[in-house]
Amino acid sequence: MTDLNHFAPSGRTTFKRKPQRGTYDRDAIYAILDEAFLCHVGFVREKAPFVIPMAYARIGDMLYLHGSHASRLADEARTCQEICVTVTLLDGLVLARSALHHSMNYRSVMIVGPCSLVKENEEKLLAMGALVEHILPGRTADCRPPDDSEIRRTAIISLPIHEASAKIRSGPPEDAEEDLALPFWAGVVPLAFVPGMPVPDNPDGNMPERSALYIRKLKERSKVR
Amino acid sequence: MTDLNHFAPSGRTTFKRKPQRGTYDRDAIYAILDEAFLCHVGFVREKAPFVIPMAYARIGDMLYLHGSHASRLADEARTCQEICVTVTLLDGLVLARSALHHSMNYRSVMIVGPCSLVKENEEKLLAMGALVEHILPGRTADCRPPDDSEIRRTAIISLPIHEASAKIRSGPPEDAEEDLALPFWAGVVPLAFVPGMPVPDNPDGNMPERSALYIRKLKERSKVR
Repeated sequence: MTDLNHFAPSGRTTFKRKPQRGTYDRDAIYAILDEAFLCHVGFVREKAPFVIPMAYARIGDMLYLHGSHASRLADEARTCQEICVTVTLLDGLVLARSALHHSMNYRSVMIVGPCSLVKENEEKLLAMGALVEHILPGRTADCRPPDDSEIRRTAIISLPIHEASAKIRSGPPEDAEEDLALPFWAGVVPLAFVPGMPVPDNPDGNMPERSALYIRKLKERSKVR
Repeated sequence: MTDLNHFAPSGRTTFKRKPQRGTYDRDAIYAILDEAFLCHVGFVREKAPFVIPMAYARIGDMLYLHGSHASRLADEARTCQEICVTVTLLDGLVLARSALHHSMNYRSVMIVGPCSLVKENEEKLLAMGALVEHILPGRTADCRPPDDSEIRRTAIISLPIHEASAKIRSGPPEDAEEDLALPFWAGVVPLAFVPGMPVPDNPDGNMPERSALYIRKLKERSKVR
């Protein structure tokens, strides 16, 4: 597991439960990071855990988060504290014949490590562009780029993707042999995250062909599985 | 903010950023908890944060999570450690005329406090039922209930809903006055989590009228906003 295509398991990313669902494969991990766009960031304040939802973007082996300089997360980044970023895609509800074997199909990534505050303006600008592009490819060309003052007041937090793992559950329920004859419906209800019809900010400035493009791009990203 | 309809803000749940988006209103918090069914649970191991995705259910002012007795979370619960449960519903992508004002519409709840392992079989059974019912109302009548050995080997973790807050962003982008005339499409792309056609585990045992019911129940739950 020390080759370039796999992350090395650490004490923190070693699977304690259901290791058969776990992987350190770089491609599998990056595919999940590139499909989702919401993460939950965990950090520790006065020995207690905090978990906050955030947008993110990946550039190579670096994950970027953005916030305000006044945020709790920016405080962490100033002193390179450990954070944990978890990204979860929910693919389906797993309905078993027994209550206990009900489950969910999901793909989840966990990245742990010390985060930093990005100092260089050039890297900040790249990350800010990536944060928009990650959610809607092409969008940076369709809006006004950040000016110097906006770049200054934005805190960009970076986390090297080094200690990382994924956990994936897919497929049908796993009922015990003796339950298979029970007269209950069992199977999977697929779930997908889908875009609706865009709502323009200003009806006079409506550009329907453009908004249709956003729906299409999002649909490519969130295929029903 | 000390009445029954609001949670009292604590040092941890006081809003540091954009307090206008925050609320301690009990009904608003419970509505989010009751609509979503995936949470991200944060806890601290050897001073480092962990965040894991989990299913949950609410009964009154108590939140229940389930795992295995061998899980890291069950270890925390055995010694009543502090955890943070965060639930996020993503409602839309907010496309502004300026890159910096791109955002997401979301509804998010954070609950912090010491968790415990549920010891009483009766409370465990209620929680296990609630975990299934929360995702698909009525499903507990359509599957085999847990037997004594299954109840024993399941760890149910409880977290009193006491320190809790919600953060909500809704509505159109908030571009600066001087950007409103820029020639870019701005508005909101709504997002919704929708169920697909159920996939039966066993084609011979197919019960289409039953699976159609699950789609309908899920659709009620995940209305497009």
